[in-house]
Amino acid sequence: MKTIEIKDFIHAVYPMHTYLLTSIDENGKTNIITIDWLTVLSRNPPLVGVAVSPKRYTHKLIMSSKEFIINVTDISIADETLACGTLSGRNFDKFKKLGLKKSPSRTLKTHIIKNCMAFAECKVIDFKKYGDHTFFVGDIQAAYAKEEFLIKNKFKPILHLKGSLFTTISGKITKFKPPHV
Amino acid sequence: MKTIEIKDFIHAVYPMHTYLLTSIDENGKTNIITIDWLTVLSRNPPLVGVAVSPKRYTHKLIMSSKEFIINVTDISIADETLACGTLSGRNFDKFKKLGLKKSPSRTLKTHIIKNCMAFAECKVIDFKKYGDHTFFVGDIQAAYAKEEFLIKNKFKPILHLKGSLFTTISGKITKFKPPHV
Repeated sequence: MKTIEIKDFIHAVYPMHTYLLTSIDENGKTNIITIDWLTVLSRNPPLVGVAVSPKRYTHKLIMSSKEFIINVTDISIADETLACGTLSGRNFDKFKKLGLKKSPSRTLKTHIIKNCMAFAECKVIDFKKYGDHTFFVGDIQAAYAKEEFLIKNKFKPILHLKGSLFTTISGKITKFKPPHV
Repeated sequence: MKTIEIKDFIHAVYPMHTYLLTSIDENGKTNIITIDWLTVLSRNPPLVGVAVSPKRYTHKLIMSSKEFIINVTDISIADETLACGTLSGRNFDKFKKLGLKKSPSRTLKTHIIKNCMAFAECKVIDFKKYGDHTFFVGDIQAAYAKEEFLIKNKFKPILHLKGSLFTTISGKITKFKPPHV
């Protein structure tokens, strides 16, 4: 079997689903970053984990507030989503700069991004450094969505392929039946 | 803003990219499971993390061998991929039952699934229980792919929507430019 080396090893597992993560500073100002490196960890209790670089302003905010919100973005705000990954909240308010709207969350101090489709509010229950990132484990306090999110074929997530290349899901949804074994 | 509660909190972050994970038992037999709960953790060193239920046979195998391989599956073997998630390797050989072919890996004892598109061979450097799953952290020893994987529009990953509903990526790939801010 002929195979070719993947130069940047981590790209073997791409595409990855792209999200916007919000966190809050000590003055009550919510910041936004783009995040791909997220996984579910447990169904009961509902836990998710996200990897954030210590170089990011968000890292300091999560360390201090012990909370974050996963804002599920979609392709209608793809440009804004990418911009959140390239600009730093240390210098300015990304909501204002990018024309995104904030709204209070249900259970946390951090705000949600109204332009997003679904939200998972998380309290940090653990964190650990792995390589060049810190892995934050969040216990989901509340999860809710706009109606469109729950309708199949209406929600078009952002899927990160590599670099600045993105795509979304195919319109075709299939129900698979296991082969007869 | 009107929102609806997401009953099963973890579905807020779906769809997730679906993979096949292989691991090896003490007799040298490689087993397969389906896995959605995977994330990159670090670029340098290249680390990934996967959540596996202690109820799964694979859990015992990774605990003992301290290695696993991420086999990047695609929609051409979607039925076989789902079947690997519903059958247990305790009882029989999934390769034989599902007509999948194995091949030696480059750096580990565990075999790869030849029918897959790309491979990341991982040595376990840490593990921790979070809720109802164990999170295994793997250091990628080698990552390689079939030529089709590296050609955009040829590789069609399996994306898990919910339950037995799957889809793949749209054929359209976009290069996003951040808005002028």
